[in-house]
Amino acid sequence: MSSETVNNNLNNTMQGKPKYAGNNRTNTKKNVRNGPPRAAAEKTPARTPGKPSRPSSRRKKRGGAKLKIIPLGGLEQIGMNITAFEYGESIVVVDCGLAFPEDDMLGIDLVIPDVTYLKENRDKVKGFVITHGHEDHIGALPYILKEVNVPVYSTKLTNGLIENKLKEHSLLRTTKRKVVKHGQVINLGEFAVEFIKTNHSIQDAAALAIYSPAGIVMHTGDFKVDYTPVFGDAIDLQRFAEIGKKGVLALMCDSTNAERVGFTMSERTVGHAFDNIFNEHRNTRIIIATFASNVDRVQQIINSAYKYGRKVVVEGRSMVNVIGTASELGYLKIPQNTLIEVDQLRDYPDDKVVLITTGSQGESMAALSRMAANIHKKIAIKPGDTIIFSSNPIPGNEKAVSRVINELSQKGADVIFQDAHVSGHACQEEIKLIYSLVHPKYAIPVHGEYRHLKAQAQLAENLGIPKDNIFILRSGNVLEVDENEAVCTGNVPVGAILVDGLGVGDVGNIVLRDRQHLAEDGIMIVVMALERHSNVVLSGPDIVSRGFVYVRESEDLMDQARVVVEEALDHCLSKRMADWGKIKTEVKESLSDFLWKRTKRRPMILPIIMEA
Amino acid sequence: MSSETVNNNLNNTMQGKPKYAGNNRTNTKKNVRNGPPRAAAEKTPARTPGKPSRPSSRRKKRGGAKLKIIPLGGLEQIGMNITAFEYGESIVVVDCGLAFPEDDMLGIDLVIPDVTYLKENRDKVKGFVITHGHEDHIGALPYILKEVNVPVYSTKLTNGLIENKLKEHSLLRTTKRKVVKHGQVINLGEFAVEFIKTNHSIQDAAALAIYSPAGIVMHTGDFKVDYTPVFGDAIDLQRFAEIGKKGVLALMCDSTNAERVGFTMSERTVGHAFDNIFNEHRNTRIIIATFASNVDRVQQIINSAYKYGRKVVVEGRSMVNVIGTASELGYLKIPQNTLIEVDQLRDYPDDKVVLITTGSQGESMAALSRMAANIHKKIAIKPGDTIIFSSNPIPGNEKAVSRVINELSQKGADVIFQDAHVSGHACQEEIKLIYSLVHPKYAIPVHGEYRHLKAQAQLAENLGIPKDNIFILRSGNVLEVDENEAVCTGNVPVGAILVDGLGVGDVGNIVLRDRQHLAEDGIMIVVMALERHSNVVLSGPDIVSRGFVYVRESEDLMDQARVVVEEALDHCLSKRMADWGKIKTEVKESLSDFLWKRTKRRPMILPIIMEA
Repeated sequence: MSSETVNNNLNNTMQGKPKYAGNNRTNTKKNVRNGPPRAAAEKTPARTPGKPSRPSSRRKKRGGAKLKIIPLGGLEQIGMNITAFEYGESIVVVDCGLAFPEDDMLGIDLVIPDVTYLKENRDKVKGFVITHGHEDHIGALPYILKEVNVPVYSTKLTNGLIENKLKEHSLLRTTKRKVVKHGQVINLGEFAVEFIKTNHSIQDAAALAIYSPAGIVMHTGDFKVDYTPVFGDAIDLQRFAEIGKKGVLALMCDSTNAERVGFTMSERTVGHAFDNIFNEHRNTRIIIATFASNVDRVQQIINSAYKYGRKVVVEGRSMVNVIGTASELGYLKIPQNTLIEVDQLRDYPDDKVVLITTGSQGESMAALSRMAANIHKKIAIKPGDTIIFSSNPIPGNEKAVSRVINELSQKGADVIFQDAHVSGHACQEEIKLIYSLVHPKYAIPVHGEYRHLKAQAQLAENLGIPKDNIFILRSGNVLEVDENEAVCTGNVPVGAILVDGLGVGDVGNIVLRDRQHLAEDGIMIVVMALERHSNVVLSGPDIVSRGFVYVRESEDLMDQARVVVEEALDHCLSKRMADWGKIKTEVKESLSDFLWKRTKRRPMILPIIMEA
Repeated sequence: MSSETVNNNLNNTMQGKPKYAGNNRTNTKKNVRNGPPRAAAEKTPARTPGKPSRPSSRRKKRGGAKLKIIPLGGLEQIGMNITAFEYGESIVVVDCGLAFPEDDMLGIDLVIPDVTYLKENRDKVKGFVITHGHEDHIGALPYILKEVNVPVYSTKLTNGLIENKLKEHSLLRTTKRKVVKHGQVINLGEFAVEFIKTNHSIQDAAALAIYSPAGIVMHTGDFKVDYTPVFGDAIDLQRFAEIGKKGVLALMCDSTNAERVGFTMSERTVGHAFDNIFNEHRNTRIIIATFASNVDRVQQIINSAYKYGRKVVVEGRSMVNVIGTASELGYLKIPQNTLIEVDQLRDYPDDKVVLITTGSQGESMAALSRMAANIHKKIAIKPGDTIIFSSNPIPGNEKAVSRVINELSQKGADVIFQDAHVSGHACQEEIKLIYSLVHPKYAIPVHGEYRHLKAQAQLAENLGIPKDNIFILRSGNVLEVDENEAVCTGNVPVGAILVDGLGVGDVGNIVLRDRQHLAEDGIMIVVMALERHSNVVLSGPDIVSRGFVYVRESEDLMDQARVVVEEALDHCLSKRMADWGKIKTEVKESLSDFLWKRTKRRPMILPIIMEA
């Protein structure tokens, strides 16, 4: 961090200073400024607050060097967003997200990216720049920082959410964090990165203008265009245009909704929907499930509650956490005497309360799901309750959401799941707008499944970007870019590291395959004790099964299985087979054949020979 | 079957006579007629063909007897539709469907209803009347007929599909089947059942008018209103009205789309969409995935192929089977020289062929999924292929479908998944239409999850049916109905029987729970051999694990686990613990605690003590 520059105007509008632990404190305000990016060693005086000058697109170019863009995750799946930008001896990393496990990753809690490439180039890595505070952009930080401990740059709310995670992992003391404001630029080695205001389903989202000697890359992060946001400003389209005018090498733009025509509605429309619903349901209790991280949504629920004279209860751990952080940092305005504790519910009539809760995705342990299943300790659904799903099911969660809706309906609740949600991602017209403002030479669609990336590629082509200048990358690709060309020159190692409990990476394909096998047909264990040299059977063979068949009602089958095993063993011993491995194989195959014929199932068969 | 009546006009428009095996042949034409239903023993002459009189709603009423409506499945889930209607000594059963396993039913192939009630009343059961040939209405027949062997009544295509199933289960010889035409009435004990033409996503669907001495029940089956169907007639709305005019006691109406406003589009609109797509993609190969059972859809693909001069290849076992049955029975018109074998593909240029394939739901082993994953033996996806999903994902399949779309896109195919599908179920306006024609006294919404049933109940209420006359039943409920009242009077045993391979019902909650446990964290087996009386350890303890951790990279953990087990065992033996059950418990708990502390995982722990 020898190349850091200082700018004293950093915190001029911030409510809380960035915190650094212990001996890092002296570095607090380094590296963040409102001025233009400069070559690493250059020093410039601080700029006047309120009139920041803009970074120029000219950075000192090494002879022939190109910018490398290396997605380390995020392109083969939803989530796990992480992209390295490398120029010369500098690497900056955009985002560090986790993915949620696929259906066949049995028992896995979450998935993080393999950052071997960053570890191998640890000295080059100048920091993580984070676009916003969603799990798929920050969730892997606690794991990756343990391996590559570099500073983390993000806007205030994003930083607050990151700090919550670092606390859980006891990493707060050892992690440098810097809060950046929209419009500010940070110098990171040979790079400068400008944070640009965008809108999304979480506040304080930023697009990033990444200035390198080879040119500028615009990375939108997850975004939408909201001309009338609930909190703060609309997306800074002027700045997109201004940078576009300078000349942008590549645009990396959110593809999530690239298959959807039109324009995503303003978050504010959901507020109107809430007002209507509150107006129409004046006599019942209202329960609203939404994403914990959507602070604007929560704000609008609180606004409607206040307007209609209701108290607000917040339920669900992640909801309580996010609301705590957001209101502490000033992103949520809660009128006095509006929030009450869940235990105070009994003091108010139903038509005077609103519950805001987690569980909008049908997650089995979330508060709403527990209410629906009648296992919530403090809240029981009553006939007449009005329950609003202020969310859409994320693909894969449809059935779980439907189950919760059914359970709530069966308890007599009136479930509303229409018109109370808007997406946080740009649809086709917004994507076209950004392309038209930024006018990049190269298009690199990001964020989304392949189908979404391809849909954006098609949009880009329709907008006149030559097909050869559009790159649908795969994780690990190394795209080398400058003003003359962009070429995929190779690959770096990437992959998904599975986290199961405390284990990071100790569950791989072999263990998963065993879990899938066990899940499908269970296990049969055949144990026997043999004398090593004589091969005399001292005990067994005994058969124990789990997950195969209900043994008490299948005694015949189990008896016959035992006979099959005994015969196989006798056969081996009569041939004086000395190799226990071969004995196991013969026992296994005989039993497997027998069970397949009788049941058309293939449980895992595990012969164990003990030496006695 | 002593009360059967004969009608010689039965087969006047049928292409194939119903087939009965061996000694049942003499019964062939009994029990089916065009005339009105009569009391059981009454005999009437055959009616003139073409001018069938209509059944009257008056059937001989026993003093005070009510009609019992007993859903034996289908109301807590999608699928497994089966409903018993009981009056006096007669039971008729509408449909006999299977359900597909829920996500937590690991390793289960399919789910069938528990028909204990039918078995206990075997002598009363007069037959199954089947509304249409989808799995959730016919799929359990082969299993249930083994327990309750009664005749099966259905329309021609439905019967053809049932016969395919019976063949697979070697039940063709022993099962009586009768083909019924729309407009015909069958007498079944004290009941008469009239088949009424409807439209659905499979041909030959029927609504049923169930005439009982207590009154008429209209059961729509799965249906939509298609004024311009591809094959055959539109739904017989006149007959719905006519019966409604007589007075209908209860309407049991399809709720699947009851949450959707408006009207479901005609199947024919999909044909227009195909024509447009074929026109726009004249130079590429076209591959279309759809439901095997949607014969009209297949017909329209064939029509477009013929129009645009393409040959048709049919891929996927179930697609080949259904197309075979449908074209044999005259439900599918394939122009000569249009169908070719997959091996002939090489003889035609890409722009002269269309493939119709299974896999529209992303099923991992279906033909399209195998093509997408590059493991189809005969067909490889090429850049430029146009692939149409003529389907919507069934809830729960969204992710699988998306995966296949991504894989196809990555191979350069152009994937189209919009506008090439319509639903087979009635939306709100159609449901209202049926209620308005039938004008039932009681409404009993069927087919759908609870939320759908409730949505229809709301529609019924809006249409003026008193809330007390609307019944959202649960499987097992006994609803007793007559003109004066409808009351739930009790419950019969119901449930889901799990089929796994050849096993029917041998996997229950205990086995499933074990499979879930094994799937989550795997298994650790601790084996040891003890001498019975002395409790001297002759061998072990050894630890074997599967699905827990990759052992080669976790040797430390496994070594420590062994120490924990040894210490627990030593502790037991030093206390001269003689009860092996207690020893197992102590070993299990020690190891479980250790593993939880170290890994935050809870594998199944299975201690096995051998007596040597």
